[in-house]
Amino acid sequence: MSFLYKSDPIRGARWAELFAEQAPEIDFNIWPSTGDPKEVRYLAAWEPPENLAETFPNLEIVFSIGAGIDQFDLSRVPDNIPVVRMIESNLVAGMVEYATLSVLAAHRDWIRYSAQQRQGTWKPMPSVTANSRRIGVLGLGVLGTAVLTKLQTFGFQCAGWSRSEHSLPGIECFAGKDSLQSFLARSDILLCMLPLTPATRGILSRDLFQHLPDGAVLINIGRGGHLIETDLLDALESGQISAAILDVCNIEPLPQDHPFWHDPRIMLTPHIASMTHPDTAVAAVLDNLRRHHKGIPLNGLVDREHGY
Amino acid sequence: MSFLYKSDPIRGARWAELFAEQAPEIDFNIWPSTGDPKEVRYLAAWEPPENLAETFPNLEIVFSIGAGIDQFDLSRVPDNIPVVRMIESNLVAGMVEYATLSVLAAHRDWIRYSAQQRQGTWKPMPSVTANSRRIGVLGLGVLGTAVLTKLQTFGFQCAGWSRSEHSLPGIECFAGKDSLQSFLARSDILLCMLPLTPATRGILSRDLFQHLPDGAVLINIGRGGHLIETDLLDALESGQISAAILDVCNIEPLPQDHPFWHDPRIMLTPHIASMTHPDTAVAAVLDNLRRHHKGIPLNGLVDREHGY
Repeated sequence: MSFLYKSDPIRGARWAELFAEQAPEIDFNIWPSTGDPKEVRYLAAWEPPENLAETFPNLEIVFSIGAGIDQFDLSRVPDNIPVVRMIESNLVAGMVEYATLSVLAAHRDWIRYSAQQRQGTWKPMPSVTANSRRIGVLGLGVLGTAVLTKLQTFGFQCAGWSRSEHSLPGIECFAGKDSLQSFLARSDILLCMLPLTPATRGILSRDLFQHLPDGAVLINIGRGGHLIETDLLDALESGQISAAILDVCNIEPLPQDHPFWHDPRIMLTPHIASMTHPDTAVAAVLDNLRRHHKGIPLNGLVDREHGY
Repeated sequence: MSFLYKSDPIRGARWAELFAEQAPEIDFNIWPSTGDPKEVRYLAAWEPPENLAETFPNLEIVFSIGAGIDQFDLSRVPDNIPVVRMIESNLVAGMVEYATLSVLAAHRDWIRYSAQQRQGTWKPMPSVTANSRRIGVLGLGVLGTAVLTKLQTFGFQCAGWSRSEHSLPGIECFAGKDSLQSFLARSDILLCMLPLTPATRGILSRDLFQHLPDGAVLINIGRGGHLIETDLLDALESGQISAAILDVCNIEPLPQDHPFWHDPRIMLTPHIASMTHPDTAVAAVLDNLRRHHKGIPLNGLVDREHGY
């Protein structure tokens, strides 16, 4: 019985140590070393290898190394094999940090102050109290919910939008396409934390932007594929959107000639909002293996119909 | 009986409305209009007028419009007249927002990412979890305590230093000069939230910086006078300090030829970390007037010996 890890080998070495300590009965291999393919029961990967079913005939679970599985070609994974997203405490904490940082930066005009600094301009701008600022989060999964719960503690007016119905204390929850416009109309700062699926690809578009309050701020910590990048540039040019904070892009690394690099209204980070940490990721994977053996539902099990 | 307001007249107009609603028995005047000087019992000011005692012989209390009173020439205010610092909920909330924003920006390397963006560089840096990051706050007044309490909720290792002994749950408290070096040695991110007094002027100096861990980040949301600006530039050059976030400067607005403007290791904002909001400031002042009439201690009463 073995576990195959296929991702960054430096973090993989730490996974191997943790497995040796906490689950010594499981052989642990780091790709491209696989051991006997027939022994591989579990795979953790950023992207699964080709010919998955043929190469590893006894595979029981596929774990994603990341919170999302949009990088997975699900058609490569046989229907009877569960695919599991990564839900672990440090990944959630990192996303809460980055989202809070971005929202406070938007709320306190740091992008404009940074541009003013480069121009040598000392010019205080009127400040708005948190209870007059409306935050909207697209996506009410584990990450979106954790972020809204933290933002609430600052006194912001918080709302979330999701495909399906949710109920969260003190947070206005909107569900389904019909409520999207009302949600957008009350979102001064909009965070995208959606999974990337055929239904959400390109959702951050001219169409969506026009329903936001004038001068709204966009924060994308979902995936680059959520955003129509030329539509954002147009919205910044017209003032419909006043600033954007982007951790993800359509093409990563962002091409050298891309206008995002030098736009003073954009703060850009290289897909670092949150990362899986080996210690807590291995704890989450081992917990799911225990659940698997006991026949209880896995945490983060992917719904193939909805693609996340 | 009248109240004299001497500060920004736009916010003063709102003070006048609030006084008319909530304390109609008190005449309210906005400087330079004073009404009958003998009627002036209370003064709220950023800087008190000259010849205070002679002009307003029946003055009973002087309120500072700001959280600090370093801009006050206390020798102008007779010893028998209490001077009161501004402690009001929105001022505290604004400071908590700005401090959290700055600490998260330091923690998540935003200043370096911002410099990388301007150079067209896509380069993720290793991340550190909050429980491995040590935050130190100089100053454990109402503001420093509120900031540490919020930072704790992110899981940071939190400590504070103050002239006098404090005890705060979950926060390591250091007191007095003898403990300053040990406090600094464990502070990866250092925030200055001290009052500006003869004892704290120039405290952020080469001497202090050398006791910080290599590559520490400095955040100054106290006063410009706390920082020896040339010492900071030297510490940035040597790498002793890796980045600085400054909301205050020795000379404000910062002179055009000052090196802080264009240093990519510095994030500069124009003294906007927090501001008094009329609604909550008037509530705090009226509460203190009630205390004064009942003979109970005023909130924010300045200790003249220590100068804050």
